[in-house]
Amino acid sequence: MQKTKDAYSHSVALTAHARHQGKIEVALKAPIRGADDFAVWYTPGVGEAVRAVMDDREAVYDLTNRQNTVAILTDGSRVLGFGNAGPEAALPVMEGKAMLFKYLGGVDAFPICIKAKTADDIVRVALALEPTFGAINLEDIASPKCFEVLETLRKKCRIPVWHDDQQGTAVVILAAMLNALMRTGRSLKTARIAMVGAGAANLRAGMLLMAAGVPPANMVFVDKDGILGSFRKDLKKYPLLWRICRTTNRAGLTGGIREAMRGADAVCAAAKCGPGVIKPDWVSEMAKDPIVFSLANPMPEIMPEEAKKAGARIAASGRSDRPNQVNNSLAFPSIMRGALDSGARRITDGMCLAAAYELARCGREHGFSDDHILPTMTDAEVFARVASVVGEQAVKEGVAKFPLPAAFFYREALSKITRARKETDSLARSGIIH
Amino acid sequence: MQKTKDAYSHSVALTAHARHQGKIEVALKAPIRGADDFAVWYTPGVGEAVRAVMDDREAVYDLTNRQNTVAILTDGSRVLGFGNAGPEAALPVMEGKAMLFKYLGGVDAFPICIKAKTADDIVRVALALEPTFGAINLEDIASPKCFEVLETLRKKCRIPVWHDDQQGTAVVILAAMLNALMRTGRSLKTARIAMVGAGAANLRAGMLLMAAGVPPANMVFVDKDGILGSFRKDLKKYPLLWRICRTTNRAGLTGGIREAMRGADAVCAAAKCGPGVIKPDWVSEMAKDPIVFSLANPMPEIMPEEAKKAGARIAASGRSDRPNQVNNSLAFPSIMRGALDSGARRITDGMCLAAAYELARCGREHGFSDDHILPTMTDAEVFARVASVVGEQAVKEGVAKFPLPAAFFYREALSKITRARKETDSLARSGIIH
Repeated sequence: MQKTKDAYSHSVALTAHARHQGKIEVALKAPIRGADDFAVWYTPGVGEAVRAVMDDREAVYDLTNRQNTVAILTDGSRVLGFGNAGPEAALPVMEGKAMLFKYLGGVDAFPICIKAKTADDIVRVALALEPTFGAINLEDIASPKCFEVLETLRKKCRIPVWHDDQQGTAVVILAAMLNALMRTGRSLKTARIAMVGAGAANLRAGMLLMAAGVPPANMVFVDKDGILGSFRKDLKKYPLLWRICRTTNRAGLTGGIREAMRGADAVCAAAKCGPGVIKPDWVSEMAKDPIVFSLANPMPEIMPEEAKKAGARIAASGRSDRPNQVNNSLAFPSIMRGALDSGARRITDGMCLAAAYELARCGREHGFSDDHILPTMTDAEVFARVASVVGEQAVKEGVAKFPLPAAFFYREALSKITRARKETDSLARSGIIH
Repeated sequence: MQKTKDAYSHSVALTAHARHQGKIEVALKAPIRGADDFAVWYTPGVGEAVRAVMDDREAVYDLTNRQNTVAILTDGSRVLGFGNAGPEAALPVMEGKAMLFKYLGGVDAFPICIKAKTADDIVRVALALEPTFGAINLEDIASPKCFEVLETLRKKCRIPVWHDDQQGTAVVILAAMLNALMRTGRSLKTARIAMVGAGAANLRAGMLLMAAGVPPANMVFVDKDGILGSFRKDLKKYPLLWRICRTTNRAGLTGGIREAMRGADAVCAAAKCGPGVIKPDWVSEMAKDPIVFSLANPMPEIMPEEAKKAGARIAASGRSDRPNQVNNSLAFPSIMRGALDSGARRITDGMCLAAAYELARCGREHGFSDDHILPTMTDAEVFARVASVVGEQAVKEGVAKFPLPAAFFYREALSKITRARKETDSLARSGIIH
């Protein structure tokens, strides 16, 4: 039955894509009332804007849309569940991402799907593109290439560079974990957490959990070759993984997923598509009232209802058709919104933490329950609040060009997000999009 | 007086730019009615589109907006009258160009202002970007770098690459010249034409005039060092210029602008900003009822009213505040429209000729006079007609992926252009842009 329903909705998706021939377009932000306006927006009037930017390069942020423009940059080397699909096949995904950026965050994001082989190729293109964009969102780049690209660009760019697959996912996982721990009467300081998978998303999530206060000693990572610990000499050549090996798993656990989960308070799996990666029995062997996040898309490592049947008190997944969807769309639009509006030069861990805490707070305010640990995406208010704490934190850390009060960032965000939604609604009503 | 008026309108332009903080944005082309639609446009639904493109790369044109997306690519090395302004200062101009592309042609063009030093740098970025775009519009790249970039990309890309400063300007000059010659009872075959300036625009215009039937023998080019001819050994190292030297100026004229103009039926100047580059006396020394195009922006080589006073029957310039504006905005939106809708692999000289002839024909149909040799930009119909002949010609030459009838291209163009204008109007009415 499930299969039939999926197949049906998939064919609907393909038809919808074919019917609309694209999900985003370029629209005019300034009005043209007639040919006379061309003289203001183009020659000769635009010359004044050119001159102003030549005099002061920062003026470009006042005179163009650069401050609100984000590149969604990918080489298509790790697209959804498809792996190295290539830049053309990545385009539908990046257009979808651009939709979410606009609708949820009021951000003008544009897909940049490039032909590139190495990390260096990607870095070179990104550096060339920097003058056009207010920020760069890296997307669906294979690991470990993505780490190198992110690190190099963060050093070399004067605009924020963000890897959503790592950072965005981590923010939402942390928010969900904060609330799940709270509901089950646990604290960050004492919870034992098993991290299943050591790819881009789960590594960054683990690091953010630790930055939020989970002691490394209480965390255990597992990859396809087993539990990580200082005995995993095979990982010595990967600095980040090796640091994890040396600092986590103070109990010296060995074995696989089952051993990592045994007695743990929570498991956070972002490994490979299941089901069957996590067995129900292993959930039963966890601590009382266990928390099970199985986040592989589209098929979780264990289906949430199975996890629940096996004793999980709280189960979350990446699926929109199950309770507790852990979806990075809850984070990236507002984090980018806050970073852009504050003129942040980079997106720090502190800004990510602030976002996660605010997201968790929003989740607790409406209908908080074991099946609703996170807010839903329909509420523009949530995005505006997260954006405002992100901007506030950027100011606190001294990375913001515009050190304005949080209330300003809140109003900016709310007005831009509301405008984006209204725009879509208005066009839908006028029959232009349907 | 003129100066005061200019200064006033310039400060208006700067204020307008600062107020709107950008002239284009990203908008949703497909509707989002609620969070459920994310499952169609993003995960998991979009996976079906990814799979379809992985199976057949051409499907990207049906399932995304790629077919209607154009990169406006520049390194900012020759921006308007400012020279090497750099990529940031080029951004306001490219946003303006994107506005025109959308409003006049229904084309989704996106500014790509890059940090690049050499022609190779630009080529490398363009090749990396190819999978994202349906075509590339090169803009404001310094000469001779622009020739190398255009030639290399035309060879290496499977999408059309167009250099508007060369090709777009040439199309409108040819259309204007066709009508000016007709009004003054001349023919392409016998007219003597002086080309003042041998930069990107004028060279390409001269070549298109010759492609249209002006015998090379009847044309004379002048650059800053004087008239071009086989005696100009200094130009031997530039293949294109050297070909001009050997084939034009059969009369063996020597000297400067004055000598090139003496007795000529028409002069087409796209050299450097005047006034004073062309003296009124020299106009008086041309053939009877002479045609004077002085196209430097913003100050023509000779103001049209001066040219008229000196005896010109028809005077044209690049200025929007004078009759007979020769403006490439009349050409590039519809040529790109026709190229995209026909799936043209490149934009051939034949397609440019077809566009120029249709543009001239449109000009003759409404209020044709010595002061109205070209149509105005307000009529969507003109753009749709030019797009349709461009598409038709692409089909004839076998470069079109979609060999459809001209009527189809006409309807497509008209509906897309009308939609773009309606969209702007609709947003303006709803108060979202103002």
